[in-house]
Amino acid sequence: MTAATYDILGIGNAIVDVVARTDSAFLTRHDMHKGSMRLIDSAAADALYADMPAGIESSGGSAANTCAVAAGLGARVAYIGKVAADQLGDVFRHDIEAVGVHFPTASLAGGAPTARCLILVTPDGQRTMNTFLGACVSLSVADVDPALVAASAVTYLEGYLFDPEEAQAAFKKAAAIAHQAGRQVALTLSDAFCVNRHRAAFLDLVANDVDILFANEAEITALYERNSFEEAAEDARQHVSIAALTRSEAGSLILRGSETVLIAAEPASLVDTTGAGDAYAAGFLAGLTAGRSLEICGRMGSIAAAEVIGHYGARPETDLRRLMPG
Amino acid sequence: MTAATYDILGIGNAIVDVVARTDSAFLTRHDMHKGSMRLIDSAAADALYADMPAGIESSGGSAANTCAVAAGLGARVAYIGKVAADQLGDVFRHDIEAVGVHFPTASLAGGAPTARCLILVTPDGQRTMNTFLGACVSLSVADVDPALVAASAVTYLEGYLFDPEEAQAAFKKAAAIAHQAGRQVALTLSDAFCVNRHRAAFLDLVANDVDILFANEAEITALYERNSFEEAAEDARQHVSIAALTRSEAGSLILRGSETVLIAAEPASLVDTTGAGDAYAAGFLAGLTAGRSLEICGRMGSIAAAEVIGHYGARPETDLRRLMPG
Repeated sequence: MTAATYDILGIGNAIVDVVARTDSAFLTRHDMHKGSMRLIDSAAADALYADMPAGIESSGGSAANTCAVAAGLGARVAYIGKVAADQLGDVFRHDIEAVGVHFPTASLAGGAPTARCLILVTPDGQRTMNTFLGACVSLSVADVDPALVAASAVTYLEGYLFDPEEAQAAFKKAAAIAHQAGRQVALTLSDAFCVNRHRAAFLDLVANDVDILFANEAEITALYERNSFEEAAEDARQHVSIAALTRSEAGSLILRGSETVLIAAEPASLVDTTGAGDAYAAGFLAGLTAGRSLEICGRMGSIAAAEVIGHYGARPETDLRRLMPG
Repeated sequence: MTAATYDILGIGNAIVDVVARTDSAFLTRHDMHKGSMRLIDSAAADALYADMPAGIESSGGSAANTCAVAAGLGARVAYIGKVAADQLGDVFRHDIEAVGVHFPTASLAGGAPTARCLILVTPDGQRTMNTFLGACVSLSVADVDPALVAASAVTYLEGYLFDPEEAQAAFKKAAAIAHQAGRQVALTLSDAFCVNRHRAAFLDLVANDVDILFANEAEITALYERNSFEEAAEDARQHVSIAALTRSEAGSLILRGSETVLIAAEPASLVDTTGAGDAYAAGFLAGLTAGRSLEICGRMGSIAAAEVIGHYGARPETDLRRLMPG
């Protein structure tokens, strides 16, 4: 096996976030589950946007956020995802390339517009997401360059990628190529509702194709249909080489074979949880691909997440490298 | 004279801001004057954007910011400005309407794209702006509805509007209609470089058509070509009914006939000065059109400015009404 050219190759839905502050009553009025992600079509996106307060726009997408944060931490990173050839697509491409991520995926011309996620942040810091997938549904097997996957130490997939049908095939192709090349496959479960929509497919993938699994408490208990976090964590331990399970202010639990490492959460002033899990995975994988201990990997994840929840938006506002353990 | 339907009608360049953090060396490398605004063409905007770090996008435009803040303070506000029929134009329209501003100007189809301002914020909180005017150059006399101007207590014009040639005519038409209807005309000088580009036209306008003048120290001394702020302030006192002159952390000076009111700056944690002057004008005009004293108007301006400089972006992140004097 040759040395990897990239530490991390992220594959995900390429999305521009629109972040606005609302109260919980707004969520109720629009039948949203606080803290979750739901898919909406173009008409619903227009109607919701019309009713939303003024917002700020920034590049998002779960795996793309992870890639941006990991690159900021010094990892060599590439990303595959589909934007349209439009203004928001230009913003997405600019932002991910500006942090040094290699982004070879061609923009979609003449199809749906760049995906957007309408994110409502309530005063408790929780974010509730409404995603119009737009151009993301055009991500296909053809966008997965086998040489790029084979040249990446870890191929990192977001669970949300199971929602666009074509992307599932890209997802599976990437996992197969990675393993054929002797590389590792990482997955984040993304969202408990997403897990419920695709549980059988997720269980199959986790049991057979995933080496490194990221999930929060709601997602891992949804995957294994367990009432307790501890039971679900033990299920995950049997399925994957490394499970990194996050529990918000209770920190994270990392399982590898018989090892169990408990990481405390970093102190943080909660403004907006958008991107917290993405940043955690970034810190963890940046550490792991640099050969750091599980404990350091977990701390790197926690520190990155703490920075991201301290302000609006999913990408860091400070130089994370200066915050990291030596 | 019938009662006004709107307290404030803003007319300005309708712009979407792209805000990124850089160091001062970046400004030097690109020949920028820190704290100022320069005009760039489409090719220069593309080249600069390609070299800029990742950013966040939000609605901007000087007079539009003022309108948004004033509406948030409870004033009845309308706005005239030109966006294109594109994604950034949709964002601009959404955001200004979402805060309750009446925005009747038709979007430009088939012409230049929506204007954008590439804003570089340095660690000292100063913002340096690079504006591609795009669709703004298509704002014309036809966009100024005489009935709307006549129905607005104060027509508020930004100095930047002197840069697109067609807009100057719209500017003068609006001022003439306002006075014919017995209303007031307010002007902000916007930027010292802008004042230098158009000094003769500004002097003529201030002497003959402006009732309420907003400027900072650099702008008012540039207008009157004075070495001292005090001399320039006395010049302004002779020209306009009310001059509200801001001096950053030294607060503001308000002149009306023989009256002189000194307002202290509000304590603030400086993150990004973008929109500080716009917010000051908004607080001041919201107070003035509500019949408040000059001192209260000045304090309202200072409080609004202090909120805006405490975070990235030119529009408030909190409910300003709760911060205002009773």
